[in-house]
Amino acid sequence: MAAIALIQGASRGIGLEFCRHLLLKKSQVTVVATCRYPENAVDLMGLAAQNSARITVFKMDVNREADIKDTAEIVEKTFGKVDLVINSSAMLHPSGKGETSLKDVSAQGIISTLTTNTVGPLVMAKYFAPLLLKGSGGFGQQPPEKAKQHSGIIVNMTAKVGSIGDNALGGWYSYRMSKAALNMATRNLSIELGRGRPKVVCVSLHPGTVNTDLSRPYHRNIPENKLFSTEYCVQCLMKIIDNLSMEKTGKAFAWDGSELPW
Amino acid sequence: MAAIALIQGASRGIGLEFCRHLLLKKSQVTVVATCRYPENAVDLMGLAAQNSARITVFKMDVNREADIKDTAEIVEKTFGKVDLVINSSAMLHPSGKGETSLKDVSAQGIISTLTTNTVGPLVMAKYFAPLLLKGSGGFGQQPPEKAKQHSGIIVNMTAKVGSIGDNALGGWYSYRMSKAALNMATRNLSIELGRGRPKVVCVSLHPGTVNTDLSRPYHRNIPENKLFSTEYCVQCLMKIIDNLSMEKTGKAFAWDGSELPW
Ligand SMILES: NC(=O)c1ccc[n+]([C@@H]2O[C@H](COP(=O)([O-])OP(=O)(O)OC[C@H]3O[C@@H](n4cnc5c(N)ncnc54)[C@H](OP(=O)(O)O)[C@@H]3O)[C@@H](O)[C@H]2O)c1
Ligand SMILES: NC(=O)c1ccc[n+]([C@@H]2O[C@H](COP(=O)([O-])OP(=O)(O)OC[C@H]3O[C@@H](n4cnc5c(N)ncnc54)[C@H](OP(=O)(O)O)[C@@H]3O)[C@@H](O)[C@H]2O)c1
Repeated sequence: MAAIALIQGASRGIGLEFCRHLLLKKSQVTVVATCRYPENAVDLMGLAAQNSARITVFKMDVNREADIKDTAEIVEKTFGKVDLVINSSAMLHPSGKGETSLKDVSAQGIISTLTTNTVGPLVMAKYFAPLLLKGSGGFGQQPPEKAKQHSGIIVNMTAKVGSIGDNALGGWYSYRMSKAALNMATRNLSIELGRGRPKVVCVSLHPGTVNTDLSRPYHRNIPENKLFSTEYCVQCLMKIIDNLSMEKTGKAFAWDGSELPW
Repeated sequence: MAAIALIQGASRGIGLEFCRHLLLKKSQVTVVATCRYPENAVDLMGLAAQNSARITVFKMDVNREADIKDTAEIVEKTFGKVDLVINSSAMLHPSGKGETSLKDVSAQGIISTLTTNTVGPLVMAKYFAPLLLKGSGGFGQQPPEKAKQHSGIIVNMTAKVGSIGDNALGGWYSYRMSKAALNMATRNLSIELGRGRPKVVCVSLHPGTVNTDLSRPYHRNIPENKLFSTEYCVQCLMKIIDNLSMEKTGKAFAWDGSELPW
């Protein structure tokens, strides 16, 4: 049976590129792409039209628990399992720019950011863990010992600026806090989903600084060779995913495979 | 001029005990106590009635940005500065118990927990940083070099279970994530408020396992000698606060002075 990859936040940027990459480079994979406004996601819908046998798009807003529950139900009915979930959706802040200092902080701004970047992926795990536990381990590396094999993988897209110990510059309160909390979610998930059998590998991945709408307000300040194309970024991240196993669960890795501090 | 200590979340538990301790043991200190329902905070109001010259109680819900803004304005008008802010309010989860597994997770539960435990303290910092920058450094240790002195201190009450690297048991998703994000806030604040002059020391403190309403659902499982009285806890925490200086800013410490990992 085909490996099923669910890409959450697939309308643009890195999530969209994951869909493209899987369709192009992994002929055994079936893609489930979710986004909140399929009607506006022109690139994703174009991709889906060209590959209709291998990709299904569902409308889902990670800010709505009912959407996530409904999507998990229909994915279960349609495919019976999932092998990989990638939570890609996030924002820097509702304003589109991270706070430069406390004066930019607002309760509303940080709550919105936490809701999308942190709560969304955790609620995804709640409803998709049962499907991942029914997965066939179609991604990553399986060691010979059955007891150490995994049935599925959760990837939470984090950011290096979400590492507390690594934080030397400050600013971007909402985004940094959302990713630190997301890293805790990854760690907690790895414990809960690593205890029994089957098991699910849970990691946080930092994609580097990537040429997308999210980073656009800062492109002027980024040296050209430090701004990755989405193609390069996803190639790097897919290499990491292809090498995941239970030994790596509960950790955060950067695009180059290096482990990030908490 | 008296040192001003603001205790946020002073109606019960550790916050209330901080008020009591400061009134009893620090005769030079004036206490500003905040809580959301002074009308229900019988113990705090009793303390205030007995010490009316040294303690003022303000009604403030950390979930309401407008409350925080208004309180900062009146504190500024009344006292002109603050030397110490302790953010003590928090909850395990709206249900009163941490999630034992994913099935207990809900978007609403985690958003409420993050709003009180994480957003509240950050928004406090937004409105009280200007007052702390006008502080007279009445708490902690001041080194001889003027450039290394601090005008104020922010203490965010964290929890050891909020340390990502230390997490071996899982569970308590909302609470753990809220404290990991709070630790990031502390770190970020230490950078922003440590850059210029004057400077504010910002730390996260873990009080140990303390006999309060928050831990009550778990008291049966805690060996008696591991469950601290609020008196003992606040004695330990006050010793740490008395020894704070800019050298310790941006870190997390436990009640015994040991540094916590992120
Ligand atoms: N780009 C970078 O340099 C960089 C660096 C570090 C980490 N990251 C992380 O990488 C991930 C992908 O970022 P990106 O650069 O690809 O961002 P992007 O191009 O801005 O795309 C963001 C995606 O999130 C979706 N989204 C936002 N709110 C949503 C919601 N409530 N429900 C469902 N989807 C929602 C957007 O959907 P709509 O089209 O509907 O708005 C869009 O698909 C994020 O987690 C980000 O934090 C990126
Ligand atoms: N007790 C422990 O074992 C333990 C262990 C580790 C960390 N901590 C941390 O230590 C701190 C103090 O905890 P505690 O044990 O003293 O808890 P507690 O006895 O349950 O008291 C919680 C306090 O938070 C207040 N609060 C809750 N929501 C609020 C809001 N929206 N606005 C204003 N105040 C609000 C409560 O006020 P009301 O009276 O109005 O409800 C109460 O004063 C917390 O940050 C906690 O996470 C405690």
